[in-house]
Amino acid sequence: MSRRLCARRTEGVDKNIWVEFTKLAADYNAVNLGQGFPDFPPPKFVQDAFCEALRGGPMMHQYTRAFGHPRLVETLSRFFSRIVGHEIDPLEEILVTVGAYQALFSAFQALVDEGDEVIIVEPFFDCYQPMVRMAGGKAVYVPLRPKAAGGGAVLSSGDWVLNPEELRSKITPRTKAIVINTPNNPLGKVYKIEELQMIADLCIKHDMLCVSDEVYEWLTYDGAKHVKIASLPGMRERTITVGSAGKTFSATGWKVGWAMGSGKLIKRLKAMHQMSVFDCATAAQEAVAQGFEREYEVFGTPESYFLQLPAMLYHKRNKLAACLQSVGLQPIVPEGGYFIIADISSIKVDSRDLSTEDEPYDFKFVKWLIKEKGLATIPVSAFYSPGHSKEFDKYIRFCFVKEDSTLDAAEDILRNFIQ
Amino acid sequence: MSRRLCARRTEGVDKNIWVEFTKLAADYNAVNLGQGFPDFPPPKFVQDAFCEALRGGPMMHQYTRAFGHPRLVETLSRFFSRIVGHEIDPLEEILVTVGAYQALFSAFQALVDEGDEVIIVEPFFDCYQPMVRMAGGKAVYVPLRPKAAGGGAVLSSGDWVLNPEELRSKITPRTKAIVINTPNNPLGKVYKIEELQMIADLCIKHDMLCVSDEVYEWLTYDGAKHVKIASLPGMRERTITVGSAGKTFSATGWKVGWAMGSGKLIKRLKAMHQMSVFDCATAAQEAVAQGFEREYEVFGTPESYFLQLPAMLYHKRNKLAACLQSVGLQPIVPEGGYFIIADISSIKVDSRDLSTEDEPYDFKFVKWLIKEKGLATIPVSAFYSPGHSKEFDKYIRFCFVKEDSTLDAAEDILRNFIQ
Ligand SMILES: CSCCC(=O)C(=O)O
Ligand SMILES: CSCCC(=O)C(=O)O
Repeated sequence: MSRRLCARRTEGVDKNIWVEFTKLAADYNAVNLGQGFPDFPPPKFVQDAFCEALRGGPMMHQYTRAFGHPRLVETLSRFFSRIVGHEIDPLEEILVTVGAYQALFSAFQALVDEGDEVIIVEPFFDCYQPMVRMAGGKAVYVPLRPKAAGGGAVLSSGDWVLNPEELRSKITPRTKAIVINTPNNPLGKVYKIEELQMIADLCIKHDMLCVSDEVYEWLTYDGAKHVKIASLPGMRERTITVGSAGKTFSATGWKVGWAMGSGKLIKRLKAMHQMSVFDCATAAQEAVAQGFEREYEVFGTPESYFLQLPAMLYHKRNKLAACLQSVGLQPIVPEGGYFIIADISSIKVDSRDLSTEDEPYDFKFVKWLIKEKGLATIPVSAFYSPGHSKEFDKYIRFCFVKEDSTLDAAEDILRNFIQ
Repeated sequence: MSRRLCARRTEGVDKNIWVEFTKLAADYNAVNLGQGFPDFPPPKFVQDAFCEALRGGPMMHQYTRAFGHPRLVETLSRFFSRIVGHEIDPLEEILVTVGAYQALFSAFQALVDEGDEVIIVEPFFDCYQPMVRMAGGKAVYVPLRPKAAGGGAVLSSGDWVLNPEELRSKITPRTKAIVINTPNNPLGKVYKIEELQMIADLCIKHDMLCVSDEVYEWLTYDGAKHVKIASLPGMRERTITVGSAGKTFSATGWKVGWAMGSGKLIKRLKAMHQMSVFDCATAAQEAVAQGFEREYEVFGTPESYFLQLPAMLYHKRNKLAACLQSVGLQPIVPEGGYFIIADISSIKVDSRDLSTEDEPYDFKFVKWLIKEKGLATIPVSAFYSPGHSKEFDKYIRFCFVKEDSTLDAAEDILRNFIQ
């Protein structure tokens, strides 16, 4: 064809880390601590709710309200109003999406215009960058940096912090928004209220929006406390908070997520939503609604899945971190989320065993680990901008949200090849 | 804020006919022949498959392959290869989407660039226009026109045709694609092979792509035969064919659809897909896969749902058409799809009973019918471009894919107020 066959907006986004490494893990039948999903089932009460919804009459199989199934937005409103301490309007301030992923997409498409700048904190969930670019925006990066640790390696994700001066230096008159992710993927950092306040102050002072990805909000460890930046004074009207039923109920394959924010912002996301997917699956939303209704009743008691899951993951985190430590893959112990990143620099691999592709060392290492050792992880440089400092190129990411038997299999592999 | 709060791309798309009229129907508790969905359940075999999938182990609740659940793309490939008579590659030539709606969105985003022109045949499923615009394209319209019927009203959707000269006159060097929809929504036209060949010839001659929305492909009546334009010589490499499990299995709330086309085009849609939703719900795809596997075995026999459903809908179409005819709402009898459009010009409504909003007459009529008579339909001018000829402003659309009891209730309303 003489004309350009396809639109420019999708150029350069063919590669995707999840597509690439999930396929590689499957091709080599590797023990998979790569992509972030549990290999155990969601709790029985939401599974049952889903099946019952499917048996709940013809309308459970047909379209529901475009912006969210009524029962789901009602219960999300009730649940999160109690958390943030102000009323969230179920119809105006919540949009149900095809997973948090599509909430992020709709947010960037709705908020970011040609030429806008968006500040992204590194390391970051990889899709933010192409999503910002696809919306016509320019991603500007600011790294979390490990604090110089007195006389030893930095061991906790909490020791990785933003430098306020450095963040401020990235703000220009074109800055439209900042994207944060707490608990963070891949690092596991849970932002402290003082850190969020610093970001909030800058948002307010420089009239910026905030996209806050909080998909791991219930998953914190060692007493770290998840705080919603939208609950800080002045932030409610300028924040889009993104959440995930997949990460909340260990059901990533259900593809139910949401965006919450002021009616003025959510209205623009709704416009995007109704032009891209129209509505989300009905029965899955009904099941998630029932899950939240139950949690509303038992929240804070030992019955609560929102307490049980992090309690269970705390042990898995400790188990994997101890193994990594013992084999010399120094872990950064995460305060939250699904993942541990670990330092691979002490592991010597014969360079003849590494791929000769032009790619960062951690990519080569991860491919070697999959192909030669049968263990799948994710290279952490995938969570950094192209021009990032090489000091961050020595980590790989492990997902510990797995059956103990899966973790045991991974540990066997690690202990066997690392003397 | 001094800066523009939100992105320009969502401006002017706040209004949506489905959001507006579905809400109005609910608010007035009207008998709902508006939005296109069955009020009866999907066949038991796919319902059961969905429930069994949810009981099928932990991985049924987690992410699946981004571009389509392996079992689903495999069976879609097998099924549709047999239909079109050439091999469709399950991994390269199929993309599973969040309903046909998101397939259309991804297609327009992937194919249409700033300044491209896209020809849309009127009347058209309303989302094509804003989707094209959101992709930076310019929609150009060409109408289906009723043939002058010898000595009487035009009664069949088959009598509405494209004028080849008129279509040709719309093609410019900027024309990127043409969008067709067969069976058509709202008219019910099923394009004959000669009509498709005429369009195909123009596509090939002028190097245009074709987006063919075939969500009602199994639903044809009176012997009308659905033909895939992608099966015509030279069209395979330039056509994106969109399909819907929702319309195929009477399960619009499952939100499973697909796009098929050459690997070169589908690759661009995949890039868009992985940047917007990443993947689709796992268990729903598993259930749809099982549905197609069953149909593959029984296709063409009386066991086949793809025969049973149109046979059932044929009676419903006839029932509603007869009622409309008898009350003076002259129907255009559809050869396919979910809908009948009918001429409201013989119905006199006291103008004091009509809304005073600045909107086409059919909008006013439909609102009156909902509010005053408790019957919901859709105004057909919603399926036309803003500048369309007023001759098309006298129709409203009825969905007949409803329980007979629902159709009876609608008929009672119609017979009662029209003497
Ligand atoms: C689109 S895959 C997302 C999975 C995930 O959140 C992760 O592994 O980081
Ligand atoms: C997004 S609502 C779609 C329903 C439908 O196809 C119709 O009613 O035309």
